Amino acid sequence: MDAVREVEPQDFDRVLSSMCTEPHPVARDAAERFLATNPGDPGTYPQVAELEREAISLLGEVAGLEDPAGYVASGGTEANIQAVRIARERADSRTPNVVMPESGHFSFQKAADLLEVELRIVPTDDDHRADLAAVRSCVDSDTALVVGVAGTTEYGRVDPIPELGRVARSVDAMLHVDAAWGGFVLPFTDDEWHFGHAPVDTMTIDPHKMGQAAVPAGGLLVRSADLLDHLAVDTPYLESTSQATLTGTRSGAGVASAVAAMEALWPDGYRRQYVRSQNNAEWLAEALEKRGYEVVDPTLPLVAASVPRSTFDALRARGWRISRTATGELRVVCMPHVTREMLASFIGDLDRLEVRASVPITSDD
Amino acid sequence: MDAVREVEPQDFDRVLSSMCTEPHPVARDAAERFLATNPGDPGTYPQVAELEREAISLLGEVAGLEDPAGYVASGGTEANIQAVRIARERADSRTPNVVMPESGHFSFQKAADLLEVELRIVPTDDDHRADLAAVRSCVDSDTALVVGVAGTTEYGRVDPIPELGRVARSVDAMLHVDAAWGGFVLPFTDDEWHFGHAPVDTMTIDPHKMGQAAVPAGGLLVRSADLLDHLAVDTPYLESTSQATLTGTRSGAGVASAVAAMEALWPDGYRRQYVRSQNNAEWLAEALEKRGYEVVDPTLPLVAASVPRSTFDALRARGWRISRTATGELRVVCMPHVTREMLASFIGDLDRLEVRASVPITSDD
Repeated sequence: MDAVREVEPQDFDRVLSSMCTEPHPVARDAAERFLATNPGDPGTYPQVAELEREAISLLGEVAGLEDPAGYVASGGTEANIQAVRIARERADSRTPNVVMPESGHFSFQKAADLLEVELRIVPTDDDHRADLAAVRSCVDSDTALVVGVAGTTEYGRVDPIPELGRVARSVDAMLHVDAAWGGFVLPFTDDEWHFGHAPVDTMTIDPHKMGQAAVPAGGLLVRSADLLDHLAVDTPYLESTSQATLTGTRSGAGVASAVAAMEALWPDGYRRQYVRSQNNAEWLAEALEKRGYEVVDPTLPLVAASVPRSTFDALRARGWRISRTATGELRVVCMPHVTREMLASFIGDLDRLEVRASVPITSDD
Repeated sequence: MDAVREVEPQDFDRVLSSMCTEPHPVARDAAERFLATNPGDPGTYPQVAELEREAISLLGEVAGLEDPAGYVASGGTEANIQAVRIARERADSRTPNVVMPESGHFSFQKAADLLEVELRIVPTDDDHRADLAAVRSCVDSDTALVVGVAGTTEYGRVDPIPELGRVARSVDAMLHVDAAWGGFVLPFTDDEWHFGHAPVDTMTIDPHKMGQAAVPAGGLLVRSADLLDHLAVDTPYLESTSQATLTGTRSGAGVASAVAAMEALWPDGYRRQYVRSQNNAEWLAEALEKRGYEVVDPTLPLVAASVPRSTFDALRARGWRISRTATGELRVVCMPHVTREMLASFIGDLDRLEVRASVPITSDD
């Protein structure tokens, strides 16, 4: 008996909330071929270990880092945790703190809980980017890490990374850039976000988001390989000698699919996808504005708009997978699987709901 | 261009070192179907979230736990880290310690580094099981957790779990059982290892090892759901409210394949596999003993034997994926993909090497 066969996995034709997407066909193929391999045990599975070196090399190209070091993580959360851990280990302070704009991902709260470091959350400015004055006044000699986000989860904003780097250096702290989602679109914009633009020490950049690899394929990059030594433990019973990853056994599917996707798409395929996604986001933003909703300008392919809760709930009831920002705005991520047709159908449903809502309620209701 | 297609993944016909294996065909099928889903976002991917509840329910059956709670983790390392984290959070002490036999997995060292708890490692007895007297004399009022292993990585030994539970209770510590590898063979032995046998609070039990699921499918079980509250962080932008996992985005492939494997194999298929693996281990142990090697009795399907380093290296050079214990013994894990034919071929290679080694070296060499 195989009851799982009777369950249909989510199809993507109404998914507007996810930062994951359908893997590119070559990424799916690679994931299926390498399903039964474990890059966490390179002595046993050397082929996938070699592919992981290739993945890091390609990620380095995307992120402006020569001689990159790092590894393919389970996802952005692991990479963010490990960045905080490196900073904690490197810091002289016994009470280290991490300074992050409020637009930072909740995985940093997880990291702070786990690693028992203080997380200092500073406000963002009117454009949802880290408020530099607030960051400057928040760092001190106990600051181990300053976090900048390159493509925020809620509004797709890029923090002023070079300036954050200067603030971090002024107190001998490290700079981490969370480009988990933005890393595969930012190479095609004018933003300054990567190792070549600023004194970035560590970066999260996930192939399994805009990179179109299969889950789990997150990415941790570090400017110099010795930073990974802070994470290493000895590994008896494996024919390798130490391990810097948070997990032990890891998915070869994720690693192989990341290499396959990046080889197929970097840079031209990713550029075309960015243009398509950005155009979709701008189309959706305009469609929502025309209907009188307040829309946050989509500087990256992510749209946030003030839609009433009742409308939001009605759209979810119609099967749309949508989510909200912390302040309650509708949030639509224009991932590669999100087509213009999907968005037109979404707006069509919205229009039907609004028409119904505007019908006067009769007295015998 | 797709250079990954030219790389052949490891095939399993010489893999004797891994605690992972080829996924069962139904597990592979489920993994491929659910590749593009994320149980970390249940609001967007409700089908795989429902499958995860089914996975935990089945794991509870395997591990003797009614009303089980827990989740499908990235692997045993994550589950062990989370168990230590729960214990740290629950402990009153500001300097909590964890007491573990030296046979415990190196992931506990990782957990101790990460969580900044003291790891107290106690010796094992002559049969490689936790030395109870040593554990008793090591625990104190700061002990947050006692770890017992049910199927050790090196020798497949099961610690005296009920007795460790009593020791843990005597100092108000928790008891964690690491059955990452052993959990899918121990139901068919006389060992006392699970929630029904002892006051176990948390357990690691990995479908992606002897459970024949696809990586990544580890398992964390907790006796009562409120223990997971120690791990939870709030989750804005997801239509769920909190998250107890260490990672964020997670692999639906692992979850679906775990359910498919357990539905297909629990209990009869796993029982048959245990018998086959155990018979293979005993056959290999006898073959090695006959050849004069010192062998650790395989009480579970894992064989350790004192083979000279030069022989070990020569076998690796012939393509055998083998590994060593911390004290240098050859270690062979009789996973489901390990057949009698593979082992006979391995012994054949060993015999050829030994014949060659015993040929007198001639003077003109």
